[in-house]
Amino acid sequence: MEQMQFQKLTGGLGLDREQTRTLPLSQVKIEDSFWSEYVRLVREVVVPYQWEALNDRVPEAAPSYAIRNFRIATGQEQGEFGGMVFQDSDPAKWLEAVGYLLQSSPDPELEALADELVDLIAAAQHPDGYVNNYFTLKEPDGRWTNLAECHELYVAGHLIEGAVAYFRATGKRKILDVACRLADCIDTAFGEAEGKLEGFDGHEEIELALVKLYQVTGELKYLELSQFFLDQRGTNPNFYAEELEKRGGRVHFGHLDIAHDLAYSQAHLPIREQATAEGHAVRLVYLATGMADVAAETGDENLTEACRKLWSNIVTKRMYITGAIGSQEYGESFTFDYDLPNDTVYAETCASIGLVFFARRMLRLEPRGEYADVMERALYNTVVAGMSRDGKSFFYVNPLEVRPGACSKSRIHAHVKPVRQGWFGCACCPPNIARLLASLGEYMYTIGPETIYTHLYIGGTVDLDIAGAKVSVEQMSTYHTDGQVTLLLNTDLDVSFTLALRIPSWSGTVALTINGVALTIRPENIKDGYLHLKRVWQTGDTLDLRFDMPILKMRSHTAVPHTVGKVALQRGPFVYCLEEADNGPALHRFSLPKEGTLSIVEGLGDLPEGVCAIRAEAQIIQLESENEPLYQSEAAHLEEQSAEAIFIPYFFWANRGQGEMNVWVRETF
Amino acid sequence: MEQMQFQKLTGGLGLDREQTRTLPLSQVKIEDSFWSEYVRLVREVVVPYQWEALNDRVPEAAPSYAIRNFRIATGQEQGEFGGMVFQDSDPAKWLEAVGYLLQSSPDPELEALADELVDLIAAAQHPDGYVNNYFTLKEPDGRWTNLAECHELYVAGHLIEGAVAYFRATGKRKILDVACRLADCIDTAFGEAEGKLEGFDGHEEIELALVKLYQVTGELKYLELSQFFLDQRGTNPNFYAEELEKRGGRVHFGHLDIAHDLAYSQAHLPIREQATAEGHAVRLVYLATGMADVAAETGDENLTEACRKLWSNIVTKRMYITGAIGSQEYGESFTFDYDLPNDTVYAETCASIGLVFFARRMLRLEPRGEYADVMERALYNTVVAGMSRDGKSFFYVNPLEVRPGACSKSRIHAHVKPVRQGWFGCACCPPNIARLLASLGEYMYTIGPETIYTHLYIGGTVDLDIAGAKVSVEQMSTYHTDGQVTLLLNTDLDVSFTLALRIPSWSGTVALTINGVALTIRPENIKDGYLHLKRVWQTGDTLDLRFDMPILKMRSHTAVPHTVGKVALQRGPFVYCLEEADNGPALHRFSLPKEGTLSIVEGLGDLPEGVCAIRAEAQIIQLESENEPLYQSEAAHLEEQSAEAIFIPYFFWANRGQGEMNVWVRETF
Repeated sequence: MEQMQFQKLTGGLGLDREQTRTLPLSQVKIEDSFWSEYVRLVREVVVPYQWEALNDRVPEAAPSYAIRNFRIATGQEQGEFGGMVFQDSDPAKWLEAVGYLLQSSPDPELEALADELVDLIAAAQHPDGYVNNYFTLKEPDGRWTNLAECHELYVAGHLIEGAVAYFRATGKRKILDVACRLADCIDTAFGEAEGKLEGFDGHEEIELALVKLYQVTGELKYLELSQFFLDQRGTNPNFYAEELEKRGGRVHFGHLDIAHDLAYSQAHLPIREQATAEGHAVRLVYLATGMADVAAETGDENLTEACRKLWSNIVTKRMYITGAIGSQEYGESFTFDYDLPNDTVYAETCASIGLVFFARRMLRLEPRGEYADVMERALYNTVVAGMSRDGKSFFYVNPLEVRPGACSKSRIHAHVKPVRQGWFGCACCPPNIARLLASLGEYMYTIGPETIYTHLYIGGTVDLDIAGAKVSVEQMSTYHTDGQVTLLLNTDLDVSFTLALRIPSWSGTVALTINGVALTIRPENIKDGYLHLKRVWQTGDTLDLRFDMPILKMRSHTAVPHTVGKVALQRGPFVYCLEEADNGPALHRFSLPKEGTLSIVEGLGDLPEGVCAIRAEAQIIQLESENEPLYQSEAAHLEEQSAEAIFIPYFFWANRGQGEMNVWVRETF
Repeated sequence: MEQMQFQKLTGGLGLDREQTRTLPLSQVKIEDSFWSEYVRLVREVVVPYQWEALNDRVPEAAPSYAIRNFRIATGQEQGEFGGMVFQDSDPAKWLEAVGYLLQSSPDPELEALADELVDLIAAAQHPDGYVNNYFTLKEPDGRWTNLAECHELYVAGHLIEGAVAYFRATGKRKILDVACRLADCIDTAFGEAEGKLEGFDGHEEIELALVKLYQVTGELKYLELSQFFLDQRGTNPNFYAEELEKRGGRVHFGHLDIAHDLAYSQAHLPIREQATAEGHAVRLVYLATGMADVAAETGDENLTEACRKLWSNIVTKRMYITGAIGSQEYGESFTFDYDLPNDTVYAETCASIGLVFFARRMLRLEPRGEYADVMERALYNTVVAGMSRDGKSFFYVNPLEVRPGACSKSRIHAHVKPVRQGWFGCACCPPNIARLLASLGEYMYTIGPETIYTHLYIGGTVDLDIAGAKVSVEQMSTYHTDGQVTLLLNTDLDVSFTLALRIPSWSGTVALTINGVALTIRPENIKDGYLHLKRVWQTGDTLDLRFDMPILKMRSHTAVPHTVGKVALQRGPFVYCLEEADNGPALHRFSLPKEGTLSIVEGLGDLPEGVCAIRAEAQIIQLESENEPLYQSEAAHLEEQSAEAIFIPYFFWANRGQGEMNVWVRETF
């Protein structure tokens, strides 16, 4: 490692761009009319359920084996390793979620369970720092022989993330020490020095995790190791093909040919040369997150530019309006520019979560509204759609158009489930939702030397130090209902700083009062999507923000074939959809006349309080009898009727039984 | 076999319905401005090329091994069996095509090649009549152990079909004797008697082949054997699961689980209870063809009704406007009612060919215009689209919407090729096209006791005996260009019979003159889609038919989601499409205004003579720059321009390089 050259490794301070910092979760309390319920579900339902599932105590779910594997590895139980090659990552993600929950508020019972897990993990660690139950139990001689497929560093990365979160919550070093020893073990095995492996994991995760470990420990070697993994990726010769040959051609996931389909793992080009988002969508956004982390820590402008390129390709050519990514089931992957099929889409919940990770890192690199806009889009639509309203079932795949019959009878729709599922063979999404929602406070603000950036309008309180003062900002928000936000400042002294308030891209006009006095917003007050308010703030200062929240008919770029001639409704952060529960079957028959009225419906049926539906003047084509011919001349009679269509926010779909759902609707004139 | 009960096995004469007979090919000569070129291509290009391919003498194509396998089986060459388990069917289909060509006109060189093949096949036959090179060479002990997967009776069926066609052409008994001995061998092995196998082939074909063998030999046992296979299908217990267990669980096509996914092979229900077209599309239509054959020979009304049910389900719920069937690549199969995706469709050329087979059998059972309409739809669109204009390349899959980029970058489109391919690993389609086009004359007419039914309007001459007279009907047709047909009758004596002329479903009005005198067509003259002209015909009688051929905007049943709000253009037998070659890229941007004019363009570029294009007043959405956002409010400027769109007949697509193609176009107002 000592031979490596790092550019500006401790830089980032002398840049033109203003780099910002993220606030620790302990400084942000959420009390929000929309989000608190989700955080409560994570704490009271998801995390406890997941612990039971990890311990194989959920009768209706297939066993996880995850804790049992640790017991076997530590000699407390007899048996064989069970589950996927990356099964260890599940308890790690659970530990991470627990860490976030405990950062927000103490919970001795939960902490006791976590300590139990920490003890198990520590006991499973080899003397040289290695921890991985799959290899320990199933392939004791296979360590580091199948980086392409076996998620070895991915699992390590999750363990490190869990350790950092738990250490931050509790200050207990035990699991952090485990993580450091594991990272040291990896550092010993990988690098450019003679005798080390110049490899990198098939599933990115270690990169971003090592940056977290660096941030919490200050140990530069972890940052260097992260940068090594990033820069090693996609170089010649093909490391995956070489290790495949070395291990005699044995493969784990035969249908994918990971060793040669390098784009699947973003290993087809050096990362700085990757201009398009390719391959497995979750991997790509985890990679990009790690890239942005390293760029922020090192000030590497070239790496920052590589992040911008990937970001831009995703959000301008490969992202669904719901903030979903991954256009196809094969390889859970991206396809190509403007290929956005709505019914056969993959749109994994984890991929949108990873996009939120990436967005947050980009916001740290440069506060631009587009990052927060996309983060908001993913959060309010695909991410929360991923979980049912009772926290007990989950979507892995998040389609924008569903016909339940197709899911069971058409193979290209087989991965799409018309209702949320209880648990999964590959149970990555539920714990990922849990850890994201439990750490939501980390996504709301970033702080510059003299600026507080507000990215998400979520009710609650943040406490921070800025410009030598202690400041607390209380948000009281009905943002998701009507776009109204009140910010109440408390400071220990009068202090000059800038409050930079994101103006959501969907907002028509913004009205602002400070202490009841209306402020005229001038173009020069707005920079990169943020309204900059620089002044000497005094305790008790109150800002009332009112974002105009019209019902928008959204359209796609004209290069997208799947949505041409169609519109999607959006209001505020929510994208809307038609559901069979409100509108009957064969939703494709609906169209929206260009001049038809759209109105807000409050208090519809089972919608959560404050979540509005939309009533639309629509046209509907009569469903013909099955005796009618399959094809006939248009001259034949075809009845179209005026109708009313009810749209609900996308995130809420499939909470009322099984039925059709559709986001994009034909527009008629 | 003697224990079996056959209902009305020699019946069919006392039915209310009028059964008709098909004419032998030798009585029909084709001389048509559209079809003759295809028949010529088959004779001069496809069949000679195929012979070279079967003999592994085409350097640019992967070896077929088909003839080589026969040489190895007969000891003339050393080596191992090569190719698919059904590789023997390729030479058989070649022999069948040759048989049809020779029935139409002699060709001593071709006959010499065929005799060579006949000698090889005869030499490869076991003393007990068995012929199958795969089992002979690769699994000598495996005979009849894997009916579900190994196409053993399917291959036998093709051998029988080839033998019958070649015998009919040449009168040479050698190959017919081979076929009879093979059928006897099968008859010995299969049946309800003690010690016989109560099985049936995974890929239907033997059923229709045995009826042909019965028709040419008069041997009732072949018809009985066909009926046995039909009635055995889908009965309990599951024969495929039983044989799987007997052979120790070995499978050939592991990804399909054929032994348990019984619908794939139409073995999920007894055939008389199958109300929907399920499973592998080619298999389904081959099955239905065999069912209709047996129904016609036995007069089994219940079986006829089963045929009608399958027919109706296909054509009213599961068929593309191009006459294509098979909505998905997985299992090359049907999916469910009204599921007709245009881009991920399978639409195998062979399936449409099988649909033509089925239609012809239904026409024999009962002359109804809808059978001929569908036959015509499949022939003029999917079947001829299957072959390039030079006869050298072929489509296996026939999509209705193609973006070439998707074919290489999206897995659900990977089976779709944007250009025709030279030859295939599974080379079923080219020889199937060849044998169909070489026997096209069999599809034009059926003959009742006193009625000549004209189903297809293809130029040429038919010679037949009817009502005690020798009659020849000469068709002179520019049907595909302008809907005009002239029929000239020659008879050896004045004779009373009915000429039943199909009125195509697309025809607006029909004008008819007989010997220059206009005839008023009354509703009572039309029955089941046929204009019945009963009179005493004299030699020299001339009929001029003029079918009005408007450009039709066709729409789908409103239950089809994929085409809602869209129209397809059709004129006469041709369905039209947009191609990038004429209209530029991103074809989804086109729409057709409801009142826009449509006009015929003659002599466009490379279109065959007499084939018209359509010029349409259209709207086109401007292709935005890639810097434009992926999603924006509809209020944002979006330019639509008036444009001209050029539509060409679907069959001609992809003859001018690679590009987009689209059948269904949005309609605007």
